[in-house]
Amino acid sequence: MTISTHHHFRNGDLVANQIFIAASELGVKDLIWFPSASFHCHEPMIEYLKDGTIHHIEGSMNGPLGRFASLGNMKGTGVLRSHGGRYQAVQDGEVVIDIAVIAAPTADPFGNANGLTGDSACGLLGFALADSQYAHKVIVVTDNLIPFPCVPWQIQGNYVDYVVEMDQIGIPERIISGTTRITKSPDRLFIAELTAKFCDEVGILYDGFSFQAGAGGTSLAIGNYFGEIMREKGIKARFARGGSNQYLVEMLEEGLIDYILDGQTFDLAGVRSMRENPNHVNTSPFTSYNYHGKGNFAGIVDVVILGATEVDVNYNANVVTHSDGYLLHGIGGWQNCLFSKNVILPIPLFRDRIPIIRDEVTTICGPGELIDVIVTERGIAINPRRKDLLDAVKNSKLPIRTIEELKEEAERICGKPEPVEFGERVIAAINWVDGTVIDVVRQVIE
Amino acid sequence: MTISTHHHFRNGDLVANQIFIAASELGVKDLIWFPSASFHCHEPMIEYLKDGTIHHIEGSMNGPLGRFASLGNMKGTGVLRSHGGRYQAVQDGEVVIDIAVIAAPTADPFGNANGLTGDSACGLLGFALADSQYAHKVIVVTDNLIPFPCVPWQIQGNYVDYVVEMDQIGIPERIISGTTRITKSPDRLFIAELTAKFCDEVGILYDGFSFQAGAGGTSLAIGNYFGEIMREKGIKARFARGGSNQYLVEMLEEGLIDYILDGQTFDLAGVRSMRENPNHVNTSPFTSYNYHGKGNFAGIVDVVILGATEVDVNYNANVVTHSDGYLLHGIGGWQNCLFSKNVILPIPLFRDRIPIIRDEVTTICGPGELIDVIVTERGIAINPRRKDLLDAVKNSKLPIRTIEELKEEAERICGKPEPVEFGERVIAAINWVDGTVIDVVRQVIE
Repeated sequence: MTISTHHHFRNGDLVANQIFIAASELGVKDLIWFPSASFHCHEPMIEYLKDGTIHHIEGSMNGPLGRFASLGNMKGTGVLRSHGGRYQAVQDGEVVIDIAVIAAPTADPFGNANGLTGDSACGLLGFALADSQYAHKVIVVTDNLIPFPCVPWQIQGNYVDYVVEMDQIGIPERIISGTTRITKSPDRLFIAELTAKFCDEVGILYDGFSFQAGAGGTSLAIGNYFGEIMREKGIKARFARGGSNQYLVEMLEEGLIDYILDGQTFDLAGVRSMRENPNHVNTSPFTSYNYHGKGNFAGIVDVVILGATEVDVNYNANVVTHSDGYLLHGIGGWQNCLFSKNVILPIPLFRDRIPIIRDEVTTICGPGELIDVIVTERGIAINPRRKDLLDAVKNSKLPIRTIEELKEEAERICGKPEPVEFGERVIAAINWVDGTVIDVVRQVIE
Repeated sequence: MTISTHHHFRNGDLVANQIFIAASELGVKDLIWFPSASFHCHEPMIEYLKDGTIHHIEGSMNGPLGRFASLGNMKGTGVLRSHGGRYQAVQDGEVVIDIAVIAAPTADPFGNANGLTGDSACGLLGFALADSQYAHKVIVVTDNLIPFPCVPWQIQGNYVDYVVEMDQIGIPERIISGTTRITKSPDRLFIAELTAKFCDEVGILYDGFSFQAGAGGTSLAIGNYFGEIMREKGIKARFARGGSNQYLVEMLEEGLIDYILDGQTFDLAGVRSMRENPNHVNTSPFTSYNYHGKGNFAGIVDVVILGATEVDVNYNANVVTHSDGYLLHGIGGWQNCLFSKNVILPIPLFRDRIPIIRDEVTTICGPGELIDVIVTERGIAINPRRKDLLDAVKNSKLPIRTIEELKEEAERICGKPEPVEFGERVIAAINWVDGTVIDVVRQVIE
């Protein structure tokens, strides 16, 4: 059977592990765990991967689970999908979910549920939408059962089979990533400033533009610089795609942004804003990312700021493995965001003295033709396919370089990294947004 | 092909006729028109039924269209479904919609749409939900195109193929039924008061109860009496199901009702309230009525007040034909509401000197086992199956009668009506909520 769970509680999830404890006690074997993402709190799953309760995981395997899989210890082969690819796979029947367990901060006995209120409020439940619609059996688990109707019904009770009460479904302080702060690192701040200046110079920041920036320290700083430029120019953004956080909420409340279209709230300011402000809109991978719908919002966004573990000279990028070969991260909405009009990766030239720009990435998660600009602390590389952007910076004072120049500079400083030794076994497939396989991850030989 | 339209604009719709004018000009023949309801403004369709553009109508045929069909003039056989049955039929693939045309008071170029704002604001677009989800091609037509995102997106652009602009999609003064007023007829007021008193005496009006009343003069009066009783007893309703109107909105704003779960706004007060008040919730036939979901809200409602053209001594009821045999009304949500805990039909004993209670109804739309109470100006009849209600009124001063007694009284006054002459030809099927046929309507011989 395939059992799905969701990562709205992030590292404070108290529900997913319980399912497999119960399954193990029942003696059920060879389950497929289909989380929308996994976190460090799911390390206990290793026990159930070892005892045969779980055959394999289809979903991100962050940290310990990824290391376990990378060493060839998982019985089956993992499949990593983007948030949009997960919706696509469920919608198209590529993944048939037998039981969806949806942990919900507030629910009614009919199964209507939302993430806006209750002790474990997490904002929204969009990652569970496909599961609620398509799973054979849908179980809502809550620690805040209220009389019908639970409004708004982010999850509709009409899709739900059972409602279960638990004492506590999440650890509040770990549900929200906490107040993610703007980076104080001078290098990162410089990259952020360079990114914002670049966007301004090439004309991306016009009145009515739209953007998506993540919740990392550098991304937050970029959002902040965007705000400064917008105030200065007297323009505003029509919408920002969230991951929301206090900085984005402040921009909404200041009137710098008309709407936040939010896929995931990263702090309590985001939860409050979504609860109170009708212009802070909850979205799902269906609306935002599904590649097999009649369109999705990703392609409408003017500029997205994304991360990467590696980029290569052909602008292919990697977000799941490190250069040592270990699978340590999920894809999230990263692949889906590549369909935006301008994709910018602000990345340091090296991390722990390992160059980030390579001849070839260890794992291709996104093809180079969709990645437009790399911003590093030592210069900006523009994908040669984007002649319009190259033209726009012709007379600019910005430090425009080729990606080969940036790569060589990093290697002059750090040396050329040694190749990693991989085994033959494929431990996970990396799916593209349409359900095809774009790359595989092989076992690491320690 | 099957072409669907929706009745959010009621008698002010300017879109549906245009489609068949265009189809007729193109010389397309034998279309099936699949409206969520039709109104008097659709009388021009008769021309297209005559010239072969439209083969038949699946949906309500109010007034002139019904008379046309009743006389055997429609080429094909009509199919009438409840609002929930329409969703069920589309969901289950019993009706495959080739083209859905969704007229929307506000939309963005992506296809997101709502009914809350714009010159033709009608409140909500829930009747088009199934069509947006399942139709092969979905066209949103609007006279108020705004920049992305149109929020809230009652219709999601991810389901939409095309967005078309028109100068005017509806005649504002006919979109909303106008300020429907509480009846001034002493008989009707008496029936309303009797209904409310009955509900109070048998214990339906408890703190946290729920109700649905329509927009007719008698129903509005009943809602009003409910309000008086609630104030007196110091109780409130957890929710009211709309059809919303100014009276219901006033109760929401007074705090007598926690939530309005609204399927259709009947006046501008309803539209305003839905736009401004998060506790005025827009619903769809999926959430409210779909019999092939994992549940729907209809069964949760404590009491519904419904109308009928006829009732028989077995409590079967008719809402589509009159006693003269003419098919003049649609089913609306009527069948779906029969699943509520208490179904009450407040009806006059006779209309135009024709008795309403019959030996057998002309057309069965709802089976007697789902209809609990008939309230007339000359007494209240309780379905013998509801022993609990009969027990509850054992010592009551309310005028409790048998349905046979009420029937005889009407016949004493008006005489026993002559049977109607029907032809052999079936002109329409009446579907039950699960897609089976509960009765048929035959041609009337004039």
